[in-house]
Amino acid sequence: MIVVMKPGASKDQIQHVIDLVREYGLKEHPIYGTDRTVIAAIGDKRMVDKGAIENAPMVDRIMPILAPYKMASTEVQQERSQIKVGPKKFPIGGKKVGIIAGPCAVESEDQIFRIADAVSEAGCIGLRGGAYKPRTSPYSFQGMQEEGLKLLAEARKRTDLAIFTEVVSVDTVDIVAEYADVLQIGARNMQHYALLEAVGKSGKPVLLKRGLSSQLDEWLLAAEYIINAGNKEVILCERGIRAYENYVRNTLPLAAVPELHQRTHLPVLVDPSHGTGHAHLVPPMCRAAIAAEADGLIIEVHNDPEHALSDGAQSIRPEVLTELMGSLKKIAKAVNREM
Amino acid sequence: MIVVMKPGASKDQIQHVIDLVREYGLKEHPIYGTDRTVIAAIGDKRMVDKGAIENAPMVDRIMPILAPYKMASTEVQQERSQIKVGPKKFPIGGKKVGIIAGPCAVESEDQIFRIADAVSEAGCIGLRGGAYKPRTSPYSFQGMQEEGLKLLAEARKRTDLAIFTEVVSVDTVDIVAEYADVLQIGARNMQHYALLEAVGKSGKPVLLKRGLSSQLDEWLLAAEYIINAGNKEVILCERGIRAYENYVRNTLPLAAVPELHQRTHLPVLVDPSHGTGHAHLVPPMCRAAIAAEADGLIIEVHNDPEHALSDGAQSIRPEVLTELMGSLKKIAKAVNREM
Amino acid sequence: MIVVMKPGASKDQIQHVIDLVREYGLKEHPIYGTDRTVIAAIGDKRMVDKGAIENAPMVDRIMPILAPYKMASTEVQQERSQIKVGPKKFPIGGKKVGIIAGPCAVESEDQIFRIADAVSEAGCIGLRGGAYKPRTSPYSFQGMQEEGLKLLAEARKRTDLAIFTEVVSVDTVDIVAEYADVLQIGARNMQHYALLEAVGKSGKPVLLKRGLSSQLDEWLLAAEYIINAGNKEVILCERGIRAYENYVRNTLPLAAVPELHQRTHLPVLVDPSHGTGHAHLVPPMCRAAIAAEADGLIIEVHNDPEHALSDGAQSIRPEVLTELMGSLKKIAKAVNREM
Amino acid sequence: MIVVMKPGASKDQIQHVIDLVREYGLKEHPIYGTDRTVIAAIGDKRMVDKGAIENAPMVDRIMPILAPYKMASTEVQQERSQIKVGPKKFPIGGKKVGIIAGPCAVESEDQIFRIADAVSEAGCIGLRGGAYKPRTSPYSFQGMQEEGLKLLAEARKRTDLAIFTEVVSVDTVDIVAEYADVLQIGARNMQHYALLEAVGKSGKPVLLKRGLSSQLDEWLLAAEYIINAGNKEVILCERGIRAYENYVRNTLPLAAVPELHQRTHLPVLVDPSHGTGHAHLVPPMCRAAIAAEADGLIIEVHNDPEHALSDGAQSIRPEVLTELMGSLKKIAKAVNREM
Repeated sequence: MIVVMKPGASKDQIQHVIDLVREYGLKEHPIYGTDRTVIAAIGDKRMVDKGAIENAPMVDRIMPILAPYKMASTEVQQERSQIKVGPKKFPIGGKKVGIIAGPCAVESEDQIFRIADAVSEAGCIGLRGGAYKPRTSPYSFQGMQEEGLKLLAEARKRTDLAIFTEVVSVDTVDIVAEYADVLQIGARNMQHYALLEAVGKSGKPVLLKRGLSSQLDEWLLAAEYIINAGNKEVILCERGIRAYENYVRNTLPLAAVPELHQRTHLPVLVDPSHGTGHAHLVPPMCRAAIAAEADGLIIEVHNDPEHALSDGAQSIRPEVLTELMGSLKKIAKAVNREM
Repeated sequence: MIVVMKPGASKDQIQHVIDLVREYGLKEHPIYGTDRTVIAAIGDKRMVDKGAIENAPMVDRIMPILAPYKMASTEVQQERSQIKVGPKKFPIGGKKVGIIAGPCAVESEDQIFRIADAVSEAGCIGLRGGAYKPRTSPYSFQGMQEEGLKLLAEARKRTDLAIFTEVVSVDTVDIVAEYADVLQIGARNMQHYALLEAVGKSGKPVLLKRGLSSQLDEWLLAAEYIINAGNKEVILCERGIRAYENYVRNTLPLAAVPELHQRTHLPVLVDPSHGTGHAHLVPPMCRAAIAAEADGLIIEVHNDPEHALSDGAQSIRPEVLTELMGSLKKIAKAVNREM
Repeated sequence: MIVVMKPGASKDQIQHVIDLVREYGLKEHPIYGTDRTVIAAIGDKRMVDKGAIENAPMVDRIMPILAPYKMASTEVQQERSQIKVGPKKFPIGGKKVGIIAGPCAVESEDQIFRIADAVSEAGCIGLRGGAYKPRTSPYSFQGMQEEGLKLLAEARKRTDLAIFTEVVSVDTVDIVAEYADVLQIGARNMQHYALLEAVGKSGKPVLLKRGLSSQLDEWLLAAEYIINAGNKEVILCERGIRAYENYVRNTLPLAAVPELHQRTHLPVLVDPSHGTGHAHLVPPMCRAAIAAEADGLIIEVHNDPEHALSDGAQSIRPEVLTELMGSLKKIAKAVNREM
Repeated sequence: MIVVMKPGASKDQIQHVIDLVREYGLKEHPIYGTDRTVIAAIGDKRMVDKGAIENAPMVDRIMPILAPYKMASTEVQQERSQIKVGPKKFPIGGKKVGIIAGPCAVESEDQIFRIADAVSEAGCIGLRGGAYKPRTSPYSFQGMQEEGLKLLAEARKRTDLAIFTEVVSVDTVDIVAEYADVLQIGARNMQHYALLEAVGKSGKPVLLKRGLSSQLDEWLLAAEYIINAGNKEVILCERGIRAYENYVRNTLPLAAVPELHQRTHLPVLVDPSHGTGHAHLVPPMCRAAIAAEADGLIIEVHNDPEHALSDGAQSIRPEVLTELMGSLKKIAKAVNREM
């Protein structure tokens, strides 16, 4: 890290910081500039709380040099991770782009079977659908729970699609892991550390959504929690961030995709449904995400969005999905990927 | 809610929306303007997913009228809630402003006793200190856990301060509730619904921090989860939001305090330590928070911030706290409060 | 607009709002709900300051229904505007996607000629380059001014490229219009109304960049200023917004492109150079922008970015541009466009 | 500045950066860490475009050390500037807190005289009021222009209040300077550099509002433009920033006040009217601003907000102002200021 002293710091104050740096097991390297002194602190100590040194007298600020995550980093592993999902072991993160689609929530057998069939026919590789729903309001529909999981498993039997479904609490990790192929951690739970550790021990691939306003470092540290608990099969999913824009539910920052490819070997999906919040914006943002080098998409599809129990506004109809798949294939090819 | 049709919506398309509105148990009230038709949908149905209707043909957008929360609302209860905490049953939300202070984390007996004594002598009514720490990095100090809780309980014996400490997982709610006076839900867990329900059943007052980028509605709905689970003793705590500003850890939007007083009867505290991230900004923002009608403050204090295991940069020293208390008293008086 | 009364508003207070609505030349339409009264105010008065009514007793809030812009709106003109630029009259907004490229600033004859030749050979339709530079610091390079304009005009002679260059003050509109094909209004000047009116009278097409944190409505109202001054040839340019993200100079919200196509007939370009701030992110975001249905791109290219006088970090090299053009053509085709 | 190399940078690549650093007139100081090499570049060159070096091969990022502004900085001038305004030469930035109030826009003689009298009686030191209005919509009221300025000058005669009024274009600087005591630069014009230079030559004190989403550095650089043009009498005014919050027009980050006091000797006012957008939030945020050590306030007051031609929602009534002044005095005293 770099410690920047305020102008006018005395020799003693500089020495005091040097002493602190040594005390923390780092080696100091002071640089005396024309206006300011800065002290580089060398060593591989990611654990020092930088705030502690910032509180020393006449310290202006601390600038970290090293990324705070390790195992998720391309510094540690350069080739891209491929994570195989579902009955067909589709490799997410490989040359092939994988599309996952399905309803926000499992609502009934008829609904999930109809949608699963359409999703499969359209050429998708996974079916999404929530059985346990984290809802902003306690008065909203909270999901079909285990019954929903069973319907998802039956839908897998019909279609061979990989099942992606959310897990919202530590005590349901086991049951969700019993039925699902991929455990989804939602945006609200990205820093729910007990849950990260639990899915880290589940033996199942994890889809880790970006928190509503997380920085990339925070997101990769959340991935690090899962990897650190023993599970290297983490798939990242950009789902939009909260900005000031008022025509979308979230602002979808697609530059995160190529930036993540620089920083991490983990695959990156994009969720243009939550990333926009409105069905008419979903197809163009699906195309844009593939063009931005996403390893795949996760899309909300509903056969009757006007009666969806949740997320109706951002669900596209199966026939829109089918048409969309054609253009996605062409774009995947234009960026040297397949679909 | 108000359904706004796009210009050029046909009679049939308008009728289709009217049918949907009726189907959802609401009464329609169409208004034919010069450019647009809007359809007011009347009834007390907070559960209708507005997205469903938004997906109907030629619907432009849906504008909700009613607040989505109920029991937290001043519409349901007009007088301010007072929540009594600690051995002295200090009423948070009453005429008296209550100051809570203490370290980010309990680090040792010596540390917590020294700080507790200073906090008590300064005239505070509560002691904060984390025993279970939610940390962004898996490599950071994670807290002293039950041992930390025991030290907090002993500190209470010495000082009669009310103990505020964070609970980070469902399975530790019981043990934290055994030792603490107030269970704190941190910003990262504001939408961790299983945890909200668990503290809702704990029988202890809850300090609910605002999520890192939550809207007021989302925050009050999180409070509603706790109340709905049977616990009316919820204290809100504004701790800053994520904005684009780079000189602070968080941007502290104090206008939230008077706005919350309009919307809810729940008491509102402010945390200027997380709300700024830098010790030199803490005293002025403490003063500003009281001037903005906060019911109290929760402040990070450390006797040796240069060696703090977490949050050193934003911790003030005990002597700064003591001096601060004097000016806070005067400001409290200026806004017709006591301290 | 819709006036939402607070719960408990009296008959007299409701009547007072009705009187105000009438006074403003609108027709009231009250709706008495179970909890709230709302008053729809009908009429095509975009000029009423909604704040005035909001200040009446027991008014909770005002919700506007109509978009505040007119001439830029698809409500007024449904077919897409095509704006012909440069010696070859390239129609921006038509089936063909147009790529504009060039340096941040004109620095010398050698520099601009080299880059113009490369840009032309790569198949671009326009050359960008600043002669008057709005710089955040008064100590930064401020541009070559009229000499720079002359070099741009000569570069046009060599290449037949359309010249896009920024105008930063009212008193230089005439001279810039003398040399340039398209007058660029930068993000910092999006609400510089005197300048908008001046370019509105210039007789030249205008490239209007989105303000650093403007809403779409504010942006379209800025376009409306130009149109209202007599110039219908406005091209919008999304260049990223300020959000909390720290790995980019700006966050590039590509969903703005399809949303704008719904709201306005004006063409929409994207600037992925300012939209990301880093050269390695520019090619993937160029591809994503075309996939998101942009009518074209404006890209910073420099033959020697390590010595660029401004924006070196976000400038790509000519050879990167050439390679990029190939993949852009394929993506354009995938979304039924040509290049 | 500090140049951080990527891991794995070769000796030649490091040497290439060192050569660039030297070429830019700086002295290199390389530090070879365990994972990374960083190169400190020493020298007082604020003008080097850091982006240029960032584009060199294997450079990860550049971290600036020095603040980009000089004359506005406490590094250059440590004692606080006091800027004397109006007939009574009230010193803004001194021990006394100064309150300025008045309507958004001058609407008529009757209106401005009534309000001026009330503002004066309440104990304010300045009258605000727009004669030239920058409006988001071309269809909104644009101000009374020179006639408005004359009314303001007459109001000054009646009351001895200092006149604060906005200047929106270079060609009206002279006429506004003829009538006004302080020239206001609005948020939308904070980076309108031609205007900054023009007011820098006007010989009148300038009130420089923070841009809608500017960083503190950008704001102080805008002040630097004015100072650099020959005018040291710059008063900063925090008026809220754009964040994601939806219950306010802007989010008011009061921590900017004490932070600015650290960085600059210029006085800092706060505008809680634009900073919140709603009249009921204005009094508590006025109090909070004084508690946060603002040197004064600028408040929108209207005698008939329901008929205000602009900003009615955020204007308080004269009687609210009068009552507010009492509590502000007490708070000023609590922070060792006078009023």
